[in-house]
Amino acid sequence: MIVLFTDFGHAGPYTGQVKAVLQREAPGVPVIDLFADAPGGNPKAAAYLLAAYSAWFETGTVFLCVVDPGVGGARAPVVLDADDRLFVGPGNGLFEIVQRRARHARISEITWRPAALSATFHGRDLFAPVAARLARGESPPSESRDAFWTRQPDWPDDLAEIVYVDHYGNAMTGLRAATLDDSARLAIRGRVLDRGRFFGERPRGEAFWYENSNGLAEIAVNQGRADEALELTIGSAVAVVGSKECG
Amino acid sequence: MIVLFTDFGHAGPYTGQVKAVLQREAPGVPVIDLFADAPGGNPKAAAYLLAAYSAWFETGTVFLCVVDPGVGGARAPVVLDADDRLFVGPGNGLFEIVQRRARHARISEITWRPAALSATFHGRDLFAPVAARLARGESPPSESRDAFWTRQPDWPDDLAEIVYVDHYGNAMTGLRAATLDDSARLAIRGRVLDRGRFFGERPRGEAFWYENSNGLAEIAVNQGRADEALELTIGSAVAVVGSKECG
Amino acid sequence: MIVLFTDFGHAGPYTGQVKAVLQREAPGVPVIDLFADAPGGNPKAAAYLLAAYSAWFETGTVFLCVVDPGVGGARAPVVLDADDRLFVGPGNGLFEIVQRRARHARISEITWRPAALSATFHGRDLFAPVAARLARGESPPSESRDAFWTRQPDWPDDLAEIVYVDHYGNAMTGLRAATLDDSARLAIRGRVLDRGRFFGERPRGEAFWYENSNGLAEIAVNQGRADEALELTIGSAVAVVGSKECG
Repeated sequence: MIVLFTDFGHAGPYTGQVKAVLQREAPGVPVIDLFADAPGGNPKAAAYLLAAYSAWFETGTVFLCVVDPGVGGARAPVVLDADDRLFVGPGNGLFEIVQRRARHARISEITWRPAALSATFHGRDLFAPVAARLARGESPPSESRDAFWTRQPDWPDDLAEIVYVDHYGNAMTGLRAATLDDSARLAIRGRVLDRGRFFGERPRGEAFWYENSNGLAEIAVNQGRADEALELTIGSAVAVVGSKECG
Repeated sequence: MIVLFTDFGHAGPYTGQVKAVLQREAPGVPVIDLFADAPGGNPKAAAYLLAAYSAWFETGTVFLCVVDPGVGGARAPVVLDADDRLFVGPGNGLFEIVQRRARHARISEITWRPAALSATFHGRDLFAPVAARLARGESPPSESRDAFWTRQPDWPDDLAEIVYVDHYGNAMTGLRAATLDDSARLAIRGRVLDRGRFFGERPRGEAFWYENSNGLAEIAVNQGRADEALELTIGSAVAVVGSKECG
Repeated sequence: MIVLFTDFGHAGPYTGQVKAVLQREAPGVPVIDLFADAPGGNPKAAAYLLAAYSAWFETGTVFLCVVDPGVGGARAPVVLDADDRLFVGPGNGLFEIVQRRARHARISEITWRPAALSATFHGRDLFAPVAARLARGESPPSESRDAFWTRQPDWPDDLAEIVYVDHYGNAMTGLRAATLDDSARLAIRGRVLDRGRFFGERPRGEAFWYENSNGLAEIAVNQGRADEALELTIGSAVAVVGSKECG
């Protein structure tokens, strides 16, 4: 299975062209759209989202990942093998958190280049053919390097920021709920939120946080939009209050 | 074939994760996205939309339906067999109109639970595995019950409200056009609209109603947006004027 | 492979129903969503976009194309064979530029009609079954005619207008970059833009134009939205300054 994680958006030709390449190069391999609206041009926020959501998939899955504001520039194209999940994409930090949480990780630089490589659409021209090759069970056309420049050692293990706002207006943080106490509260925009379990148990219109179905701490309002009620966007800072973490 | 009818939205990971489950549990079964923007958190409006659109599909089709504001709470997960079309989803009225219009209908409560069931994403964890099992031709892991609490006897047979606004700004009502006279007019927001057949026959900018390609009475403006011109949203009330129904 | 090029939008049931027909009539044939947001009701702008993007696909591909404001009216349904790529859709000019650029082109009118033909959804009822038949390798149910009414001889070979704005706010013109000098500049909304190659080489916030990955001249702002910065929408006029073309 090939899973797409991009900031291409749902509109336009980008995802379709990538899928056409995958269909041609790896016919019959199922392709799943996971995110087409990963944080735009923001590999850091995207890194925490990718780590949380890729862990849900089975080993052997190939992730084709494009959040790549530096396309055409100096950043290296890379393949990461993290506990037998394979990630193909730009070496700009996007795989930092996946790599850090893996027991066994090997990152290598893609040295192969297609005959025709556009300056701005490596997702289609470079990453998709490599992902297809991996999905066919072939080894990546790459060289193992000590690609230190793709690491972001200063990024925290969990990110106390909003990293995604969904269709319902729920705002996901980059914090794993498992790192937080049951009594932990989240402070954001001058509000302090208690932990809940699901929507219907809260009064209508009340904001709370809960562990979402992929393990992230997520902020929601029952029958309302948390993004509007609390003015949340990607990058809004969160603080943990009253958890074990805070002593 | 498995057909998706949800309010997940097009953005975000929800439809992708559901499809990953379906792919794993029922490989090779085609999955069709019908609506990912069914009326959000509004099982009543969604029920009329689902009844109109599911009837177009062949018997044997499995519908995976999630408009489920009460997820995690007391509402029962159900399977409905309605004239050999199979519906999987929450027992909150979403299947009321399909069931009422069927000649032969059998509703049962899903008693199976997965090993890991999140509190907020039953579409992925519970409904998708059941839909996959049905698509493989197996019987549902459920018990037939007199699930009266899932019925909504007070809902009308046709709903005189807007139940969906499409990409073009056309507004679908919950009224079947076949129940309306050819000379019927629809009153909405202080305007009274005549019946038309297609767009090009009307003057540019004129509002009218017509039978859409799935049998619903739909309000449109030729080369314009009915939702903006008439300020229509889901829930806007419609009245039928001058049809046989009205005497 | 069947490629979809429509203005159906991403929301709503239209693409799903078309795919259900294709799945039933041509099972196993891959279907790719290229554009679901082609210029709405604007066959002229769409014609340049389609010509640029269809050329990227392999011969033998079937394109199911619906930008069809005149649906239900007098315009003819047609099939175009252009250098062994096959196009199915309305004869309203949508295929004008593909046809003009082809070495060998044959257009014919679809004379077949389905048993049930809605007045407003020929994409599902008429074009999809024909596209499926072509994808199965059968000949089109059509008659070759001198369908002069589908031609638009007054349209230019390249269109100096914005024909599409993508998810990132980049604005594609209907001009092929290969027709422009390396030193050509584009004037738009009182600004004159130099040519660039990719985003990262430009200062943050600077507008430029470049050859996009499908050969069109496209206007962009590094780490910004060109549509907002320059107030661009579909139809905005562009002028070429200082190219060979201009003398």
